[in-house]
Amino acid sequence: MDHAQARTWLATAVTEARAGLAAGGIPIGAALYGADGALLGRGHNRRVQDDDPSMHAETAAFRAAGRQRSYAGTTMVTTLSPCWYCSGLVRQFGISRVVIGEAETFHGGHDWLAEHGVQIVLLDDPECAALMHTFIKNNPALWNEDIGE
Amino acid sequence: MDHAQARTWLATAVTEARAGLAAGGIPIGAALYGADGALLGRGHNRRVQDDDPSMHAETAAFRAAGRQRSYAGTTMVTTLSPCWYCSGLVRQFGISRVVIGEAETFHGGHDWLAEHGVQIVLLDDPECAALMHTFIKNNPALWNEDIGE
Repeated sequence: MDHAQARTWLATAVTEARAGLAAGGIPIGAALYGADGALLGRGHNRRVQDDDPSMHAETAAFRAAGRQRSYAGTTMVTTLSPCWYCSGLVRQFGISRVVIGEAETFHGGHDWLAEHGVQIVLLDDPECAALMHTFIKNNPALWNEDIGE
Repeated sequence: MDHAQARTWLATAVTEARAGLAAGGIPIGAALYGADGALLGRGHNRRVQDDDPSMHAETAAFRAAGRQRSYAGTTMVTTLSPCWYCSGLVRQFGISRVVIGEAETFHGGHDWLAEHGVQIVLLDDPECAALMHTFIKNNPALWNEDIGE
């Protein structure tokens, strides 16, 4: 896909990540876009805000999109490489593409997704990386809790 | 693990599956047990009841257990072989064991979990299989929606 388009969509995920951070949460955001480019859902990690370990950014965006008959052609945009939980979500529901802000602070399951036919667009975005670098440095225990380490 | 223990735990998941069915939902239930055998959380698929595609039985049980510092030694008990989404959950959070009612009506990611060190106990339970056989026969479109097919 066009990287300019990917960056425009990433901005939605970054806005979500910043909203999560401002609310005292883990700064990871995501958005699910339809095959036609329409925004279907957006969200951010809600572990701290809702005491809910099941709401990673990607699962929150997926949830916000509601029930969909098919995910063919959809794109999950996320500020951070998706963990196994979120990678499994992408694979199970046949989400076609994942746009990733950065995979430097955490390398999840996106190589596995690529092996299984999901298009991966890795943007190496410095803003996304800086958000997580600072967060992990200041909140190592919370970060480890969020990824089960 | 002891199969009698596994069957006792499976009964909790079956009760959840039946509660989901009674409420008009997809009859899959799950429960998360701690290393000490305490019930941490239980739940069932809530796609229909809550219009929430993110709440599979396993993710509902995981959510109900709230924030946990570690999943070492925990067991996810589910009436049906976990899909990739729920298998990813197990892998990411280091859940140690998965007890599965049946893998006949749907074969998810449990072989992959076994390759990655998760203990798998497959019970081939006829009640679990009958629940899903009947449900899929009567609601094929809903079932396909739930697994992204």
